[in-house]
Amino acid sequence: MKVLLIGYGTMNKITARLAEEAGHEIVGVIGRSASPYPEFSSIDEAGADVAVDFSNPALLLPLIEQEFKTPLVVATTGEKEKIVEILKTRAETAPVFFSANMSYGVHAVTKILEAALALLDDYDVEITERHHNKKVDAPSGTLVKLLDEVLARRTDSYPVYDRSNVNQQRKKEEIGVSSMRGGTIVGTHDVIFAGTDEVIELRHQAQSKDIFANGAIKAAAALVNKDNGYYTYNNLF
Amino acid sequence: MKVLLIGYGTMNKITARLAEEAGHEIVGVIGRSASPYPEFSSIDEAGADVAVDFSNPALLLPLIEQEFKTPLVVATTGEKEKIVEILKTRAETAPVFFSANMSYGVHAVTKILEAALALLDDYDVEITERHHNKKVDAPSGTLVKLLDEVLARRTDSYPVYDRSNVNQQRKKEEIGVSSMRGGTIVGTHDVIFAGTDEVIELRHQAQSKDIFANGAIKAAAALVNKDNGYYTYNNLF
Amino acid sequence: MKVLLIGYGTMNKITARLAEEAGHEIVGVIGRSASPYPEFSSIDEAGADVAVDFSNPALLLPLIEQEFKTPLVVATTGEKEKIVEILKTRAETAPVFFSANMSYGVHAVTKILEAALALLDDYDVEITERHHNKKVDAPSGTLVKLLDEVLARRTDSYPVYDRSNVNQQRKKEEIGVSSMRGGTIVGTHDVIFAGTDEVIELRHQAQSKDIFANGAIKAAAALVNKDNGYYTYNNLF
Amino acid sequence: MKVLLIGYGTMNKITARLAEEAGHEIVGVIGRSASPYPEFSSIDEAGADVAVDFSNPALLLPLIEQEFKTPLVVATTGEKEKIVEILKTRAETAPVFFSANMSYGVHAVTKILEAALALLDDYDVEITERHHNKKVDAPSGTLVKLLDEVLARRTDSYPVYDRSNVNQQRKKEEIGVSSMRGGTIVGTHDVIFAGTDEVIELRHQAQSKDIFANGAIKAAAALVNKDNGYYTYNNLF
Repeated sequence: MKVLLIGYGTMNKITARLAEEAGHEIVGVIGRSASPYPEFSSIDEAGADVAVDFSNPALLLPLIEQEFKTPLVVATTGEKEKIVEILKTRAETAPVFFSANMSYGVHAVTKILEAALALLDDYDVEITERHHNKKVDAPSGTLVKLLDEVLARRTDSYPVYDRSNVNQQRKKEEIGVSSMRGGTIVGTHDVIFAGTDEVIELRHQAQSKDIFANGAIKAAAALVNKDNGYYTYNNLF
Repeated sequence: MKVLLIGYGTMNKITARLAEEAGHEIVGVIGRSASPYPEFSSIDEAGADVAVDFSNPALLLPLIEQEFKTPLVVATTGEKEKIVEILKTRAETAPVFFSANMSYGVHAVTKILEAALALLDDYDVEITERHHNKKVDAPSGTLVKLLDEVLARRTDSYPVYDRSNVNQQRKKEEIGVSSMRGGTIVGTHDVIFAGTDEVIELRHQAQSKDIFANGAIKAAAALVNKDNGYYTYNNLF
Repeated sequence: MKVLLIGYGTMNKITARLAEEAGHEIVGVIGRSASPYPEFSSIDEAGADVAVDFSNPALLLPLIEQEFKTPLVVATTGEKEKIVEILKTRAETAPVFFSANMSYGVHAVTKILEAALALLDDYDVEITERHHNKKVDAPSGTLVKLLDEVLARRTDSYPVYDRSNVNQQRKKEEIGVSSMRGGTIVGTHDVIFAGTDEVIELRHQAQSKDIFANGAIKAAAALVNKDNGYYTYNNLF
Repeated sequence: MKVLLIGYGTMNKITARLAEEAGHEIVGVIGRSASPYPEFSSIDEAGADVAVDFSNPALLLPLIEQEFKTPLVVATTGEKEKIVEILKTRAETAPVFFSANMSYGVHAVTKILEAALALLDDYDVEITERHHNKKVDAPSGTLVKLLDEVLARRTDSYPVYDRSNVNQQRKKEEIGVSSMRGGTIVGTHDVIFAGTDEVIELRHQAQSKDIFANGAIKAAAALVNKDNGYYTYNNLF
């Protein structure tokens, strides 16, 4: 398929490489960085089969304020609510896909966690994540996504980030959250269900940032055959 | 509740201890080993609220060949098909529960695996188990249960037990199976889903055999309030 | 060998059971709880080959204030400095062994960690532990022992217990410490060395409290053949 | 430093990229593939500070049959004994470094394993590895290296590759070896020490092939300051 890239930073370059390796064609870029591809300034202009965005609100918002017909995959993470609201309007004239985390595996883990929570009400839940030593925020966005899934099922529960000063027993409602940082770890997330004499664990481990680009390409390939509408990983496949 | 034990080996003794700790009463035993409890020779005779079996076909089969009314939890693992067939007939006059693996956690992991398989068709699957160095059979019954779940979803796939002499690439249809033995490990099972640059893992780790007795007690407590019928972990709760 | 128990709580009962299973004889108890064994009030009185203590300073201190000749294994954890000082004096007339953690495996992991630290100066270190939901203190004593090992090697480093409010990059000197609580987990400790594109991990996982009793019995069996002196896991075997 | 590359395949290209990112200069290549660097046909000709080889016996052997003075790092894996023999002669006129596995982390894990084996004689040992689904050989070369370390310490022991048809208890002398294959896993190795109620594990996990190039660059940087001689990871740092 013919792909238009929105943005030309690290993730867009990875997307270009993986898309070309998979036999797709990059027909152009919308963005402010130099690229080896033709430049465009609006989504429909390039005649692409699908547009894939890994950019930021400053670049994306002006582009989606006007109507377009090209299927669009959006991975920008800032100003989520505003972007989603606009995309839902644009969904009248084009199939649009949005995910705050483009990794299909992370989506799958979230769904598996949902299934696990429905079966394991009696088990204590703890969540951990590991990332490289350059990451400034903690816990990671993906951990927050997993935590939200737990809090949605266990409405009385709440996260606990540090037990070192507490000196009291864990309460049933606590959901322990731990963040580790070191080396160049791409991203590992563990959800631990601890019961009586048994522990069940669910782990997601990323090996490279390619998983986000591959997720976007997989979503793009599915989106080109869809009717106009607003799609997420929950209704795309 | 008043519990009748069928059998008086290791698992029955653990069941007695845990049931009593939880406030239940052991009203008797059917079996060939000496016990501190009154002995009975048929299921209804003890006036129990529920009977819990951890025995073997030689002891159990004669007991269930005749009709009974006492709710019955069966954990005998040999001659599974014959026992299940008889229990389905007995289900006309009593609520009966059967599971080849009494751990509720193992049941839950099986269901979580089912959810994972539906989401992760593209991922390579490998399964491993670890048990103590006295265990003679390999792979474990629980691994076989997990493997059956995978084979049911991926109808072309088949297990591979040894890659050390093969010298060729893994085929998509292979499901790798590995068994480790050492020390006093009670039982650990891992299902590994390996995709492009990401790995998703599901682990069950048992810390003691209490999980099987606790599962039987949990099932028994649910069964006493049920209508006559044949129950498994899939329709009990 | 003939063993005198000092204290008769949970750990002493486990020690009695495991010692008897291994063919040793419990010749008596010093303590304030009822036991099935003869009671004594001083260490030499029982004529034991070795005395094994799992008690507390209130019981132990008066016993060791006077000289004795029976080899003594001490596992009391409170008032460590005072007890060690007295034991070093008693070492003139008897072989005495002290360890704040009686698990031989934990000792081994500490030594393995020492070897790892000498090889992995460039790697970021993070330590985690998991214990049951009844444990009130965090981090665990064993984690503190492992952390002390790291801090002794990396003299500029310091522990960090919570990264959730920080929003800045990890500093090289940070040693992340995380505590998880849930179910009936006996104790799991992980030391993570994260480098450039590789991670090395060292894990210790306890399955039951038997490991502490077994460590004490193993130390006792070695101690009966030793000259008078002060022993730890570093010079016993 | 000025680096001469021997070979220009995948690993050499990674070495070039990482060396340049670290401020080093690639002054040329010896090899049969086209490269953007000047071509040379003997080691000293390029005037490099150090030569780094990731090639094969057919390319390397003719180059080292003649004397040279440039420090040389060799990572070719075939015909190991012949290459090592020649390198030991060449060590009279140049510092030469050889390792069958250029990852410093794998070297470190081997040394840590040596320390662990000396402490854990009573523990059952099992080793596992995981690699991508394109790898044809099993077990991996790194696993064999770890296994050799175990067999050297435990002279009666031997590897066992498949327990699925055996139906008997593990013997103390068995060292279980398991290979898993799936997705794009770069390489994970686990050594499991299973004792009575405790398990100690040592894991090495690679995230990219960069670790081999980085190891070679690290060895090269150390080698340029060394006297003539034969070096391995055991005597370089």
